[in-house]
Amino acid sequence: MIEERLRKDTQHEIKAVCVVHNETSTGMTSNIAAVRKAIDAAKHPALLLVDSVSGLGSADYEHDKWGADVTVSGSQKGLMLPPGIGFNALSPKAIEASKHSKIPKAYLAWDEILESNKTGYWPTTPSTNLMYGLHEAIDMMQTEGLDTIFARHQRLAEACRRAVAAWDLENQCLDPNAYSPVLTAIVVPEGMDADVLRKHALEKFNLSLGIGLGKLKGKIFRIGHLGDCNELSLMATLSGVEMSFGSIGYKPKASGVVVAQEHLK
Amino acid sequence: MIEERLRKDTQHEIKAVCVVHNETSTGMTSNIAAVRKAIDAAKHPALLLVDSVSGLGSADYEHDKWGADVTVSGSQKGLMLPPGIGFNALSPKAIEASKHSKIPKAYLAWDEILESNKTGYWPTTPSTNLMYGLHEAIDMMQTEGLDTIFARHQRLAEACRRAVAAWDLENQCLDPNAYSPVLTAIVVPEGMDADVLRKHALEKFNLSLGIGLGKLKGKIFRIGHLGDCNELSLMATLSGVEMSFGSIGYKPKASGVVVAQEHLK
Amino acid sequence: MIEERLRKDTQHEIKAVCVVHNETSTGMTSNIAAVRKAIDAAKHPALLLVDSVSGLGSADYEHDKWGADVTVSGSQKGLMLPPGIGFNALSPKAIEASKHSKIPKAYLAWDEILESNKTGYWPTTPSTNLMYGLHEAIDMMQTEGLDTIFARHQRLAEACRRAVAAWDLENQCLDPNAYSPVLTAIVVPEGMDADVLRKHALEKFNLSLGIGLGKLKGKIFRIGHLGDCNELSLMATLSGVEMSFGSIGYKPKASGVVVAQEHLK
Amino acid sequence: MIEERLRKDTQHEIKAVCVVHNETSTGMTSNIAAVRKAIDAAKHPALLLVDSVSGLGSADYEHDKWGADVTVSGSQKGLMLPPGIGFNALSPKAIEASKHSKIPKAYLAWDEILESNKTGYWPTTPSTNLMYGLHEAIDMMQTEGLDTIFARHQRLAEACRRAVAAWDLENQCLDPNAYSPVLTAIVVPEGMDADVLRKHALEKFNLSLGIGLGKLKGKIFRIGHLGDCNELSLMATLSGVEMSFGSIGYKPKASGVVVAQEHLK
Repeated sequence: MIEERLRKDTQHEIKAVCVVHNETSTGMTSNIAAVRKAIDAAKHPALLLVDSVSGLGSADYEHDKWGADVTVSGSQKGLMLPPGIGFNALSPKAIEASKHSKIPKAYLAWDEILESNKTGYWPTTPSTNLMYGLHEAIDMMQTEGLDTIFARHQRLAEACRRAVAAWDLENQCLDPNAYSPVLTAIVVPEGMDADVLRKHALEKFNLSLGIGLGKLKGKIFRIGHLGDCNELSLMATLSGVEMSFGSIGYKPKASGVVVAQEHLK
Repeated sequence: MIEERLRKDTQHEIKAVCVVHNETSTGMTSNIAAVRKAIDAAKHPALLLVDSVSGLGSADYEHDKWGADVTVSGSQKGLMLPPGIGFNALSPKAIEASKHSKIPKAYLAWDEILESNKTGYWPTTPSTNLMYGLHEAIDMMQTEGLDTIFARHQRLAEACRRAVAAWDLENQCLDPNAYSPVLTAIVVPEGMDADVLRKHALEKFNLSLGIGLGKLKGKIFRIGHLGDCNELSLMATLSGVEMSFGSIGYKPKASGVVVAQEHLK
Repeated sequence: MIEERLRKDTQHEIKAVCVVHNETSTGMTSNIAAVRKAIDAAKHPALLLVDSVSGLGSADYEHDKWGADVTVSGSQKGLMLPPGIGFNALSPKAIEASKHSKIPKAYLAWDEILESNKTGYWPTTPSTNLMYGLHEAIDMMQTEGLDTIFARHQRLAEACRRAVAAWDLENQCLDPNAYSPVLTAIVVPEGMDADVLRKHALEKFNLSLGIGLGKLKGKIFRIGHLGDCNELSLMATLSGVEMSFGSIGYKPKASGVVVAQEHLK
Repeated sequence: MIEERLRKDTQHEIKAVCVVHNETSTGMTSNIAAVRKAIDAAKHPALLLVDSVSGLGSADYEHDKWGADVTVSGSQKGLMLPPGIGFNALSPKAIEASKHSKIPKAYLAWDEILESNKTGYWPTTPSTNLMYGLHEAIDMMQTEGLDTIFARHQRLAEACRRAVAAWDLENQCLDPNAYSPVLTAIVVPEGMDADVLRKHALEKFNLSLGIGLGKLKGKIFRIGHLGDCNELSLMATLSGVEMSFGSIGYKPKASGVVVAQEHLK
């Protein structure tokens, strides 16, 4: 679809293709390399801009190999830090394009930052404290190993999806190829209110479940299994959900915790 | 038994009756008020010395009302602090007795401490940092309320025992009146090694279960449900145990997590 | 000068007057109320935009009373927090103007934030951890009292300036009415390199002095006396400077520490 | 004197010679090796027990080389940690003696600890959190280097003593060979009250000076220059003292800060 659309843009009015690597609101991932191939197949000069805010560090991602021009990410997801740092990875083509951009920009302009970064500095005051945290987070991730981290996320995500199936509920993401290793969005049955379940989980069990965003409000709740999540923190979460189903009058078919345990043990 | 023993001690050679309020190694509590009654019934001058290291703050305890002469406790259990502070509650009779004691003592002597404490000081360097933590811990406990805290411990302990029953395993404590709200000690079947299960839980799930002490080594493992433990941290623990049973070849009759959930939800 | 310039702008091409409340690079403050009067006297509709990043919380500032339309500030100066939060105070006139602004903007747009803030939320992920810090910082400031805080800054700044005079060095700010209570910028004698002194102070005494920015590079160094600075931290700083003068071959006329002490004691 | 006294003890009624390595209350050090020599010269079997609570890590100390039998120390001085850990270094002779000791002891007995320590454990709950701190403190000390640390303490102590001389006050320690690198105790002139000065320093400058203990109460105040103290923290302290002299009506001859700076720069 992307290729077709770009082929029709013979005047190159389209400047960029924007894709979200891991979509937090629905629990879906996109195939970034395939998008690159579509752009190339269409022989179109559009830049490939990728949002990997919630994907980086939890799902495999290769800015250079997959041919992204700009990747933006943040500190507060897979990097296990408080919110506060945003990251940009830039291709030479993206840097070149920015030089000719006519959008007014100051804080978000790259040129000064690139110049300062050469010597390890920033043109404006950086989040120094988070830099120390980032240093430690990267140490932790290198100790665990990226492959091990990605496998852990896949294992926990699969366990979560099996729990959802045991509950006889639907995953908002219907395409197994797009299942997110970062979070799972779960659809509550028609007529039930996911936010009532979320409120109950918070008040009774101090468990904060993700809210349904936009048109999904009240229809889904989301379970995160990213960053430093492990088997037992996932089990605690699934258990809190299971103990909250009564709040919306739902009786799950079977125990999701037990099914998830089978997968994880 | 205590009363009988004291009655026989007509020469008052017994100086003190020592009781543990909550026995960490077996998950049993003792009826302190009943011990006091036995001493009084025997008309014996023995002091009542109580260890409430692991009980204080998690199980109801009344030093004055129950007639304890000395109660010792510590910072690292129900008070939710790192180890480092020991507490002594003293009756006037205990203080009087200490004045005539001939045991050599220095650091553990009370007289200097009592004198210094009058003005809020200590004769030696106190654990100042833990004092700040203690101040915060007491604030937290007063906010939750002692009755609520004790009820929470009872609720979690009951959920844990139901899980044990679901697993078809035996509680080391056989007397329901002595069940500990602080921890539960669980006997593994004859021929199985609790320490293999403990090792598996630690290595696979980062879960540290209590070891069997002394002659119980290898025969039991212990689950703590004290301090800031809540429903989900207990569920995570039970789940980690349940996923580790395979390591000793044990197949539980049913899921303890599911049964515990029924009690807690 | 501002009034005159605005009067000449009969077509109202000037949209805003931008002023820095406390200029970090030179140690000068601006009279914001006077700028407002000049704009009003010229009967010009320009907005008054004020940067009080380094002034807020250390020097008196009154957004409403002084008639500012936009004030921007940050967490990392007078509020004593790590860098990471930026603040905007907005007049109704500024909000109205933003509705008609044609500059492309997303993250820095106000409308969504104002809407979310009504219920205590943000349209994007806020720096949650710094919010807790901000809560504590404001508590600390209310305990000390704003008037006491401002007086403390004035007292320390005056002590610092007296030390500079004792050293026979020049304050970069020549106008006593514009002296900054936040920092003092000090000019080193012609031919000497302030950065050599700064390097020496850092390496020998672990003292980080502010650098001269832009055309002041090498010509000045800056001493901050803001936030939680007190008499002794200022004395330590002045002493570190005094012990570093030899690195640039400078012999101060007298001890700045001694003179500052006279003022502070 | 020690040798003479021991020679007279032909019945070996003296069991141990107890010495303080660094005396916190007076700012004096003792020559431990010389005490050892005196014991050996007297051919007496007494144990050499050394208190190096405040000396260890700040002043050179060699338990084995100097022939101490027992050295006790703590976490809260040269090791830069909160109070909470006590250390015992034991010679084989001390361990042997403890086996025949008839003093009742439990918590402070060595045998169980020595047994447990072989595998890295303790017979009772250790201060786990301080262990992590100790690990970090030792890392820091090895990075700086013990020789560098001892030289830094000597340099700061000398600077402090020169300040005292500039003030025309007397060091409580009159013997230069016994000057402490850890702290300096300073005698206030006859008729003046050191505690008034201490109170003033605390209230006006948030500076906590050491109190005179026992018969020195009110006659001296003490300046610590140990642990992570550096040039500027010493200068801040000396400045706070200098600014507080007025509280007891004392006019120092000259500025101690200036004289200390001369030594340190």
